[in-house]
Amino acid sequence: MHLLHLEDELPEAAGPWEPPPGLGRHLRALRPRPGELFTLVPPQGRPRRARWQPGSGLVLEEGEVDAGPALRPVALASAWPKGTRAEELVDRATEAGVTELHIIRWERSVAGPPRPGRRERLLRVARARAGQCRRLDLPRLHLEARPLAAVLADLRAASWEPVLLHPGGEPLPLLLPRLGKPAFLAGPEGGFTPEEEERLRALGLPFASLGPLILRVEAAGPLAAALVQAGT
Amino acid sequence: MHLLHLEDELPEAAGPWEPPPGLGRHLRALRPRPGELFTLVPPQGRPRRARWQPGSGLVLEEGEVDAGPALRPVALASAWPKGTRAEELVDRATEAGVTELHIIRWERSVAGPPRPGRRERLLRVARARAGQCRRLDLPRLHLEARPLAAVLADLRAASWEPVLLHPGGEPLPLLLPRLGKPAFLAGPEGGFTPEEEERLRALGLPFASLGPLILRVEAAGPLAAALVQAGT
Repeated sequence: MHLLHLEDELPEAAGPWEPPPGLGRHLRALRPRPGELFTLVPPQGRPRRARWQPGSGLVLEEGEVDAGPALRPVALASAWPKGTRAEELVDRATEAGVTELHIIRWERSVAGPPRPGRRERLLRVARARAGQCRRLDLPRLHLEARPLAAVLADLRAASWEPVLLHPGGEPLPLLLPRLGKPAFLAGPEGGFTPEEEERLRALGLPFASLGPLILRVEAAGPLAAALVQAGT
Repeated sequence: MHLLHLEDELPEAAGPWEPPPGLGRHLRALRPRPGELFTLVPPQGRPRRARWQPGSGLVLEEGEVDAGPALRPVALASAWPKGTRAEELVDRATEAGVTELHIIRWERSVAGPPRPGRRERLLRVARARAGQCRRLDLPRLHLEARPLAAVLADLRAASWEPVLLHPGGEPLPLLLPRLGKPAFLAGPEGGFTPEEEERLRALGLPFASLGPLILRVEAAGPLAAALVQAGT
């Protein structure tokens, strides 16, 4: 079974469907067997089952698709890395089951938000990875770089429980059983400024550590999310 | 403070030391301040402290370097991914604190062992990442692709406790407190054959799950190791 996240909506009706050229090439490259089952996930509409029919392409079926894997809710609000490392962050966050991703503008952040043209590129990365790891949803990408206070207000309004990733924190595996709907805050690679550190301590958030090594920004947040999905 | 894993040994004596040209360029690109401290780790000899001296390069100092981060022992014996994904596996394994890395040749393994010329490339990846994440050691790379039985015999001879990563296993965080010196076995992306599955069950190893999503081979093993390093 293949899972594909689509760029465009699907027709409502069951029956043969000619995929757009790019998707068609991708499908043929998978060398499906006749009758092989696909799950197609359009951006807004409901996921659909379809079968491969050599010659005509895909045949959309009636009925519901199976439920996706049971992911736990986990948000990530992170410093933003430069260039292709931003794609790596989105890729890993998708594979780690991140529900939504925000960008925090820290004092020592090295990169601003992605340029508008990059949003489509990052969405493509998320769609491809979600299909490969069999996620039925996509992470929601909030690609404005905002100061901590604004991101925290949004997270709290949606009942997320913010947790700061910090080398001096409690080991995250110990903290997890006490967290219902964690939102991990990941700092920049240059670390927090002394003023930020002070403000962060004053917030009274839990601090969680991911171990003794220094992780890249594209590794840290997704690791925290992967720990949540690994279960306890 | 910078940590650099070197390709070559260092002179025994303290005093000014002219780094080889490639390393010299790398050092200058870091734009160190006068007197800035470096930890230099040669392949065999003891790690050394050195300070940056504009003009003459580095000055090696007497004395011992600080102990590195306290990593837990964790081995990884994995299917081998193709091409640059092998570099990604070594990169992530280094950042996840893997002590030693073995290649298992599974029935559905898609790639054999790296060609001899690739070993140096993989070592360069490990050295660079170890420096960045502040590891004082490097993962030991056993780059022969061997059948499971041979790798298991080696692991057990060195008192590693083999654990199979398997989607039907117990959540790894629950299993970890019972493991002293885990060695994670990671299968190929095509999954185990029915015969392998049967042989694996007959071995009586613990089976550990990393959550509900399907992970790439370069993600799965390093995530298991990172979970160990995150502490419990």
